[in-house]
Amino acid sequence: MEKRVYAFNPGPAALPLPVLKEAKKDLISYKGEGLSVLEMSHRGKTFESIIKQAEALLREVMAIPSSYKVLFLQGGATLQFAAVPLNLLAADQSADYVITGSWAKNAFKEAQKLNKKVRAVASSESSNFDHIPKEFSIDPNAAYLHITSNNTIFGTEWHKFPKTGAIPLVCDMSSDIACRPVDISKFALIYGGAQKNLGPAGVTIVIIREDLLSKCPDNIPTMTNYKLMAEKESLYNTPPTFSIYITKLVLEWIKKSGGLEKIGRINKRKANLIYKVIDASGFYRGTVQKADRSLMNVTFRLPSEELENKFVNEAKELNMIGLKGHRSVGGIRASLYNAVSPKAVKALVNFMQEFEKKNG
Amino acid sequence: MEKRVYAFNPGPAALPLPVLKEAKKDLISYKGEGLSVLEMSHRGKTFESIIKQAEALLREVMAIPSSYKVLFLQGGATLQFAAVPLNLLAADQSADYVITGSWAKNAFKEAQKLNKKVRAVASSESSNFDHIPKEFSIDPNAAYLHITSNNTIFGTEWHKFPKTGAIPLVCDMSSDIACRPVDISKFALIYGGAQKNLGPAGVTIVIIREDLLSKCPDNIPTMTNYKLMAEKESLYNTPPTFSIYITKLVLEWIKKSGGLEKIGRINKRKANLIYKVIDASGFYRGTVQKADRSLMNVTFRLPSEELENKFVNEAKELNMIGLKGHRSVGGIRASLYNAVSPKAVKALVNFMQEFEKKNG
Repeated sequence: MEKRVYAFNPGPAALPLPVLKEAKKDLISYKGEGLSVLEMSHRGKTFESIIKQAEALLREVMAIPSSYKVLFLQGGATLQFAAVPLNLLAADQSADYVITGSWAKNAFKEAQKLNKKVRAVASSESSNFDHIPKEFSIDPNAAYLHITSNNTIFGTEWHKFPKTGAIPLVCDMSSDIACRPVDISKFALIYGGAQKNLGPAGVTIVIIREDLLSKCPDNIPTMTNYKLMAEKESLYNTPPTFSIYITKLVLEWIKKSGGLEKIGRINKRKANLIYKVIDASGFYRGTVQKADRSLMNVTFRLPSEELENKFVNEAKELNMIGLKGHRSVGGIRASLYNAVSPKAVKALVNFMQEFEKKNG
Repeated sequence: MEKRVYAFNPGPAALPLPVLKEAKKDLISYKGEGLSVLEMSHRGKTFESIIKQAEALLREVMAIPSSYKVLFLQGGATLQFAAVPLNLLAADQSADYVITGSWAKNAFKEAQKLNKKVRAVASSESSNFDHIPKEFSIDPNAAYLHITSNNTIFGTEWHKFPKTGAIPLVCDMSSDIACRPVDISKFALIYGGAQKNLGPAGVTIVIIREDLLSKCPDNIPTMTNYKLMAEKESLYNTPPTFSIYITKLVLEWIKKSGGLEKIGRINKRKANLIYKVIDASGFYRGTVQKADRSLMNVTFRLPSEELENKFVNEAKELNMIGLKGHRSVGGIRASLYNAVSPKAVKALVNFMQEFEKKNG
């Protein structure tokens, strides 16, 4: 048995052990074909089958209606921050953004940078993004409303999505995609890097309602052109083949694990285990409003920075890594993506309780 | 021993077996750390060391002067087709392109699509890109001259680069980067996907002369902004971590194999073995002018399409794959990137000679 730590990294993040074992087994000769997926032509039958299976699995697992296209792209959410306004926001239109964290703000600023007309309809920045704004009115002529479903740095998450009527809802789902069942039909466009819940870094998932493709103009960078990428089924140029392959393996694991209904219940239980410790304690202090707590990233502080450092270091000695909070929040952040096992979370909870006893 | 075929794929392409073995060994627990590189935070010490080593090795192996920045990006050459004019071509300027193949043409068209002023100074399209144009005059005010050093589809390669004086020379080196020593100082900007000579799909190498960074405007997509990517040392957002790791391993293998001087000699010998068979035969027929033959992609035809199909199928039975030519040339293409061993090439040469005897 090889050594394995409990990785609570904010992303790239833990992958299921069966996925790593399968990838390792086939690394030099995939299914006895005599070459690695790392070496395979993206135009060959084997890779074609891998990418088609990845798409079919994503559609099944996330219950994506057939009226949506699924794309496997590159460049992370950051390239999508540009792609969304370049494709969907014409010069005579404006779009609305809800600013719930650093990445939501980056999405907003990227549109501004590209000389697009955008409006921040609500922001929780003045309270260091400790909640999801719920009261705001959407411009009835907005080209779309953009939200960030989970805020990795701050530890908040949308638990009820805004009703936008005829206005397309666009969502950066990078850090909670496929963590629970979601009604895809409420969204016009969902995008996200795979490196939290679905795979390794290097592949970006885009789920786009087909009718939006007719809006995409031609005079934008090819790699941001949804219409073209959809026409070419993500194979306009060489896609990130190995990352797509690992994503396929993760999706197989999700399906085998009971799908998103079951995974969603497990994720809720995992997060609640930690939130319960925080709420029962005068020692740990959550950093966000309870109603908006994230299932994926649990953020909390200790009485002093000294204790926080001690916490991170002692956890590391117990093979629990990736717990240091982002500098803009400080303290501790435990990221509990799909592949972080209940066993890992229980180990963390035990450690938290022990640590409080000794230092509280 | 696991089965291994001889892969002559045009890209993604063969990787050195020692690289695959090393990656396999560390796939579940990298150097005993208890997690895979696939799971590692890009902000952690281990990955930071991997990307820094990858850069240092690329600088050493390719002899990149310290006045150049090295970036590890995403989106393949296609995103660079947009990034180059977005960064380096102001509205009041024009740039020159030499059209030597489909991808060179795509680079040119991408600039046009973005409403940039570009000029095709020479093209070999009228003879199906069977040579590299050598006679052309560059606009003395051009923002840059763009060339494609190797044309994967057609099998031609620049063996002597054009002298551009003060005009920046920009080169898409995707399919022959690091196949031989090249004087980097002749170029202002070199870019290329790693998936032929340097690694797997999913990471794009950019080598840019530092003084050009001051030209980069702010109002372009972040993921195409060379200045920002250089400032953040390729870590503005999550980079394609695993692809960068494999690239580092390939660079170690290149260094261990004697560096580009030696690899360049081996590549020349490999290609010449096949060209010699073609030239000695009335059966095989090269598709490009001899002076411009590629060291990386050897393209040739047989007397009939029927024989070409037979050739590809019989080769496959002998575990030689990826030999079918691109539809725009037809026939056979043997891609001989760095990791294709002399042994593989000798096997192909023997097969070619046997096949000619039987069918000639």
